[in-house]
Amino acid sequence: MSKVSLINDKTKICEKLLTAVNEQNNTYIQKIISSLVPEEIAEILEATPPQERHELWLYISREIQGDVLVHTNDEVKTSLLEQLNNKEIFELTEKLATDDITDIAQAITEKERQHILSNLDTNIRAAVETSLRYPEDTAGGLMSADFISIRSNVSLEVVLRLLRKIGSIPDSTNHLFITNRVGLYQGILPITKLITSDEELLVSAVMEQKPAIQANTDSSQVAHLFEKKDLISVAVTDENNLLLGRITIDDVVDIIREEVERNQMASAGLNEEDDLFAPPVKSTKRRTPWLGLNLLTAIFASIVIGVFEATIQQIVALAILMPIIASMGGIAGTQTATIVIRALATGKLSFQNSQHLLFKEAGVGMLNGIIWAIITGLATSLWFNNGSLGTIFGIAMLINLIVASLAGALIPLMLNKLKIDPALAAGLILTTVTDTIGFFIFLGLATMILV
Amino acid sequence: MSKVSLINDKTKICEKLLTAVNEQNNTYIQKIISSLVPEEIAEILEATPPQERHELWLYISREIQGDVLVHTNDEVKTSLLEQLNNKEIFELTEKLATDDITDIAQAITEKERQHILSNLDTNIRAAVETSLRYPEDTAGGLMSADFISIRSNVSLEVVLRLLRKIGSIPDSTNHLFITNRVGLYQGILPITKLITSDEELLVSAVMEQKPAIQANTDSSQVAHLFEKKDLISVAVTDENNLLLGRITIDDVVDIIREEVERNQMASAGLNEEDDLFAPPVKSTKRRTPWLGLNLLTAIFASIVIGVFEATIQQIVALAILMPIIASMGGIAGTQTATIVIRALATGKLSFQNSQHLLFKEAGVGMLNGIIWAIITGLATSLWFNNGSLGTIFGIAMLINLIVASLAGALIPLMLNKLKIDPALAAGLILTTVTDTIGFFIFLGLATMILV
Repeated sequence: MSKVSLINDKTKICEKLLTAVNEQNNTYIQKIISSLVPEEIAEILEATPPQERHELWLYISREIQGDVLVHTNDEVKTSLLEQLNNKEIFELTEKLATDDITDIAQAITEKERQHILSNLDTNIRAAVETSLRYPEDTAGGLMSADFISIRSNVSLEVVLRLLRKIGSIPDSTNHLFITNRVGLYQGILPITKLITSDEELLVSAVMEQKPAIQANTDSSQVAHLFEKKDLISVAVTDENNLLLGRITIDDVVDIIREEVERNQMASAGLNEEDDLFAPPVKSTKRRTPWLGLNLLTAIFASIVIGVFEATIQQIVALAILMPIIASMGGIAGTQTATIVIRALATGKLSFQNSQHLLFKEAGVGMLNGIIWAIITGLATSLWFNNGSLGTIFGIAMLINLIVASLAGALIPLMLNKLKIDPALAAGLILTTVTDTIGFFIFLGLATMILV
Repeated sequence: MSKVSLINDKTKICEKLLTAVNEQNNTYIQKIISSLVPEEIAEILEATPPQERHELWLYISREIQGDVLVHTNDEVKTSLLEQLNNKEIFELTEKLATDDITDIAQAITEKERQHILSNLDTNIRAAVETSLRYPEDTAGGLMSADFISIRSNVSLEVVLRLLRKIGSIPDSTNHLFITNRVGLYQGILPITKLITSDEELLVSAVMEQKPAIQANTDSSQVAHLFEKKDLISVAVTDENNLLLGRITIDDVVDIIREEVERNQMASAGLNEEDDLFAPPVKSTKRRTPWLGLNLLTAIFASIVIGVFEATIQQIVALAILMPIIASMGGIAGTQTATIVIRALATGKLSFQNSQHLLFKEAGVGMLNGIIWAIITGLATSLWFNNGSLGTIFGIAMLINLIVASLAGALIPLMLNKLKIDPALAAGLILTTVTDTIGFFIFLGLATMILV
């Protein structure tokens, strides 16, 4: 209920803005835009067709343009950046944290990147350059340089005095990082310990040895670590244990959302269609290979039907019933595959327990098969006024649902064994298998018994 | 790469444990279990068939049993709790935070719940009872009572002294909450401000007016708020602004994961099959209604084929080619629907921009249609050595892919308008529509031209 209203609010604001853009109602646009936070504006830009998007962009105040841009998805970000010149891009980055500057630097051309880097403060430039050395989806590519590091041989009182002098502490700071003389990471001082301990104690007396994340760690592994250990922030180091930066939980939440979306898209053979309003030619280029792959697999089912051409010519009712066999097998297989793919993704299936799972799924297929064999068998007998046809359809349905359940479990397991992502490929292979086997059983039985 | 190895480690540990259970190798089981954190043990329990799961449970030391239980999914949690008596359940809860006690209290019978509540400390009991008054998936059902609240008329020095006296601060504490005399929520004191400000200042001078979340707020809305505002923790109040509890980012990460999994399961008509090893009868009961629904929709396609019975009898090649038409339409429609469902879920589609999207998708359908009409038309002509059949197949493919793209966009949009979750229902309706229309176009054209 409340979720719907939240989303409705957003779509309403979006509709009002689009109307205002079309009516050139500048004051109104200005009024709405200025009432929104950067993350909301970013969402609205993503929901806007390209032309209106570039018009809206001009209404966003300079101070928050950078912050808005950081929150848009890669494709929208690139399309907006393409409209800007070097100077404008540089101005965007002025108020951003180093991880956000890195994010923008990853989306522009090498020439633009050099221009921006050469204009940055030395410290910020060094941090951004370090981060750019790592791929976008690693801890190094995600980290920011907005952390506070201290030495272990000072007292807590000195640390507190230092913090008061700095006057502000970066967001999501629950730990200060401890480094030695040459910047090697040594551990953390939790802020809560800093507050609750005796001020005369040395940092070394209360510090904790918390492991850092290596900069080349994959982002999804970083996310799993945060989830498992309930972390707020963690230090990032290079292979020599040199402290490079920090990753915070808000970045991790974004990683989780992106990972999920990538999986959803992958199951429909979509790679990275980030921009809802990408030009049709661009979208077609992305989507057509998957259709081609699907065509190749669909031909198998056609070949099986072709084998039984003579049978179908005699009993056209078979052709009428074929889609029901295919569809029921597809659904039963998909139900099993969905559960197995989820279990594989969370690392819950090994060789040992997958045998137990196969027995279970065969059982489910058997039970479902008996239920739907009886129902569809009877219905077919009545529909075509033909008891033998009904019997054959029922038997085919029973075998089909058992085979589909087993295929739904086996195909993701095999793909996983072959190190192919089941979320990507299982659906396509599964429907080919259930269609082909379903038609073969049904038409084969009919040929043996009825012809 | 690294993600795979992370998951492999887990499945390896899991396999070793299962072997050890079967071989009754007690010392080895004890050794592995004691090397794992509660969250890891919970994952292993979920990955273990029921019988071995209950054996493994006995090896988990009493001190962490509660913590392990809190991290298992609802169905596994319930099955483990069913094996325990009142006293054992109570002992589990002794070291848990109030939100975790609430979580367990939600999974047991009313009688067990009363027994546990009556044995809890008065303060903890009050907190748990308050939380139990709200549904599980609201801010109130999720909140914990482990927060620190202070008054605004004291100095920061007094607050610091208080914290040192308490000696420890709950995890994820980035703010202290400020209440008035009667417990009404007034705002926050960020820990970072507490550290960096002059100790002589009053709390009222540095406090911030940050809004709290109402206890009846839906959990997915809570998650969106945390994501949008990059929060670490937030206060939960009742309708009278009385401070009740606190929600922290680690709970929100769990909410996001669960939401995603629920959507994935829903698209296969699976409700909440949490336990991978649920008994087949239980699983069948859950899955069979979706098969029934699918049967009803599949009948439409059969009826359409039935209309063209005479045509198929004359040209059996049509029956052979039917699965290809159905499969290509289904895939093209699914690609569009996946994108539209994602856009709807994130509130990016309104009436205005959905028109733009429909034009775009029609364009993609047209381009894909032309490509695959030519390829499949030529292939069919060659396969059946029949130019007219090939031409008709090509034309049917073109129309079919345009219609499928439009249906892939329109069906989720309409479902959303009707307040039905598109992630749940769109797939089933879409394939019915693409099958039915695909067969109708193909067989209709063939009847008009070839017969």
